Amino acid sequence: MIKTDILIIGAGPTGLFTVFEAGLLKLKCHLIDALPQPGGQCSEIYPKKPIYDIPAYPEILAGDLTDKLLEQCKQFEPGFTLGERAETIDKQDDGSFIVTTNKGTQHHAPVVAIAGGLGSFEPRKPLIHNIAHFEDKGVEYIIKDPEMYRNKKVVIAGGGDSALDWSIFLSDVAKEVTLIHRRNEFRGHLDSVEKVQDLKNKKKINLVTPAEVIGIVGDEKVKAVVVKQAQHIEKEFEIECDHFIPLFGLSPKLGPIANWGLEIEKNAIVVNNALDYQTNIPGIFAIGDVNTYPGKLKLILCGFHEATLMCQAAYQIINPGKRYVMKYTTVAGVDGFDGTRKEAPKAVVKAIE
Amino acid sequence: MIKTDILIIGAGPTGLFTVFEAGLLKLKCHLIDALPQPGGQCSEIYPKKPIYDIPAYPEILAGDLTDKLLEQCKQFEPGFTLGERAETIDKQDDGSFIVTTNKGTQHHAPVVAIAGGLGSFEPRKPLIHNIAHFEDKGVEYIIKDPEMYRNKKVVIAGGGDSALDWSIFLSDVAKEVTLIHRRNEFRGHLDSVEKVQDLKNKKKINLVTPAEVIGIVGDEKVKAVVVKQAQHIEKEFEIECDHFIPLFGLSPKLGPIANWGLEIEKNAIVVNNALDYQTNIPGIFAIGDVNTYPGKLKLILCGFHEATLMCQAAYQIINPGKRYVMKYTTVAGVDGFDGTRKEAPKAVVKAIE
Ligand SMILES: Cc1cc2nc3c(=O)[nH]c(=O)nc-3n(C[C@H](O)[C@H](O)[C@H](O)COP(=O)(O)OP(=O)(O)OC[C@H]3O[C@@H](n4cnc5c(N)ncnc54)[C@H](O)[C@@H]3O)c2cc1C
Ligand SMILES: Cc1cc2nc3c(=O)[nH]c(=O)nc-3n(C[C@H](O)[C@H](O)[C@H](O)COP(=O)(O)OP(=O)(O)OC[C@H]3O[C@@H](n4cnc5c(N)ncnc54)[C@H](O)[C@@H]3O)c2cc1C
Repeated sequence: MIKTDILIIGAGPTGLFTVFEAGLLKLKCHLIDALPQPGGQCSEIYPKKPIYDIPAYPEILAGDLTDKLLEQCKQFEPGFTLGERAETIDKQDDGSFIVTTNKGTQHHAPVVAIAGGLGSFEPRKPLIHNIAHFEDKGVEYIIKDPEMYRNKKVVIAGGGDSALDWSIFLSDVAKEVTLIHRRNEFRGHLDSVEKVQDLKNKKKINLVTPAEVIGIVGDEKVKAVVVKQAQHIEKEFEIECDHFIPLFGLSPKLGPIANWGLEIEKNAIVVNNALDYQTNIPGIFAIGDVNTYPGKLKLILCGFHEATLMCQAAYQIINPGKRYVMKYTTVAGVDGFDGTRKEAPKAVVKAIE
Repeated sequence: MIKTDILIIGAGPTGLFTVFEAGLLKLKCHLIDALPQPGGQCSEIYPKKPIYDIPAYPEILAGDLTDKLLEQCKQFEPGFTLGERAETIDKQDDGSFIVTTNKGTQHHAPVVAIAGGLGSFEPRKPLIHNIAHFEDKGVEYIIKDPEMYRNKKVVIAGGGDSALDWSIFLSDVAKEVTLIHRRNEFRGHLDSVEKVQDLKNKKKINLVTPAEVIGIVGDEKVKAVVVKQAQHIEKEFEIECDHFIPLFGLSPKLGPIANWGLEIEKNAIVVNNALDYQTNIPGIFAIGDVNTYPGKLKLILCGFHEATLMCQAAYQIINPGKRYVMKYTTVAGVDGFDGTRKEAPKAVVKAIE
């Protein structure tokens, strides 16, 4: 059982900044995310795109924003349960909560902050009748550890940036990379498209277009995929492989959280924005894109504010009756849980002779 | 008469970010500030100190934060009335407002956003009976344009960073710089103290300590100051000068705004935080440190959020009945009023042969 002060569901920008603000109040955080990496939409959907409305950043790439937020909260040593979906929540007699993931990992905390964005990112799966049978037996929808593919034969399907970028990356790792897409045209960064063209010319990537994977062959594990190609005349053939990786994008689903007894409106969790972003269940807060209230804007900067106010209320739940006097970071410095201390250089008082 | 869409009182971080958010909604802003430069507390009180809780900035100097905010909003061409205090507000028949400064400058706008922080920064003045007579006739409490002092004889009083830093700066501009402080010890950045020591040794700054200016001599203009020095035996003498600049710090005063009919609680303006940070007077909003509501935190990041939500409400007042569909900056780009355009590189759709 993982124990923490604030259990955060969702490691997007809102969840990450919560770790920092909680840390200033000496509260520890643990984050659960369905994705294998932190950053939420920023790292999953548009890591290489610029955002222009992060305050005091005239421009920042979404991936760099994630890195900065990770750097800022690092000193507060957040725990992570990645690649797992928070599935159930059970209120304990003492008012605390146990949250269990789809893989059975249990987390115990007095306060739960749902920073789930548009929901848990779930892969779009191709319609292949026996695909479920091969999940985690050669079929992966998300690449968690590229080393898994070293010297393996890999078939990737998809026509966007993920399919392009992972084909490029794995062409150096895997024994063989085949990229299958149902059109000749790919949609992505110009660099990536050109690089794949180049690797194809060098025979480091096999390209099969316009084509689709329509079946999977194997017993316990994937042995080959069945491909239907529609160039000139339609033909079907098999490609031997150890892994089949369909990269058709991830789509967020509020999913299990919708059944936690929280008040939901338009697929978002209703919170008390006049006070502390608490939901209808005391001790459960919802911050960032996942919540709704009059005038709500689904913007990153709003999640930062909501997280900050929420942490004050969490402090009161965790330290009942204790008065907290806010101090400016500039004045009080920042004491990390890892023993580091940041502080402004002190003014000196010094005579001039 | 200066006309704009949103008249912002206070050019601190909250006011500056309002310009950016308003610009995204194609609303123009004009800012009034009592200080000669934008940045509010950040530029006036602690420009060289690090802040640790600006989201995604593990550390940023308060002065650099101001620069980044100015850079971010530049494309929306804000107007500035600096060095003047907003004094009166008059509601017009059409619901718009005219705000007049202590120097008589008039501003007309349908929406007023008070981002006045802890109040208008007013200098702490030394107790010298005839000092008021010499204000702007050789006595200045804030240095607006250092060129004014070229080849002049200047007496500066004070023992903190401002007194130290301006003595250093003006030692290269003025004909003569005298620094007077009531103790031998100065309180400031080590660099600054050491630099003044060095300039004193090189006779580029006259140091008179422990001493106080107790009188001003002159008719229409300052001709000299009367100094009482208390080393060994007390003595009084005059120092000839063209300017006397007491730099004893600025203290913020809510001041005239307190009489505008706004609901005030603990020296701050009560707003509707459940919706749009509007005050009890429709069309007047209060954002950042200047407002109060249950759970309010006087933090920079909170001002950013409040400004953003407020701009949406301002849009509705200025464009009644018009529906605004928020677009992400990453997706829609940013069109400056100066003709510039920022946008994310577009994905290409390209065949791989
Ligand atoms: C193309 C694009 C451009 C954008 N441009 C801008 C912009 O310019 N400015 C701006 O401010 N915003 C922009 N946004 C929106 C911005 O990305 C979101 O506001 C922000 O990501 C919300 O952060 P969050 O932390 O609240 O949620 P998210 O980033 O959505 O993160 C939520 C995380 O929670 C996880 N999660 C949810 N439920 C569960 C569960 N049950 N178990 C485990 N994990 C779960 C998800 O997997 C996800 O990783 C843009 C979004 C997109 C898609
Ligand atoms: C030493 C110190 C350290 C701090 N550290 C941190 C920190 O680490 N993190 C953090 O988030 N915050 C910190 N703060 C607080 C932070 O600086 C404020 O929250 C922030 O400046 C508020 O911004 P604002 O724009 O709302 O107001 P301000 O910065 O106060 O700006 C308001 C401006 O309005 C002007 N004004 C007011 N009334 C009038 C009028 N009638 N006419 C004309 N002009 C007027 C004032 O002159 C001023 O320039 C610190 C503050 C101090 C003093």
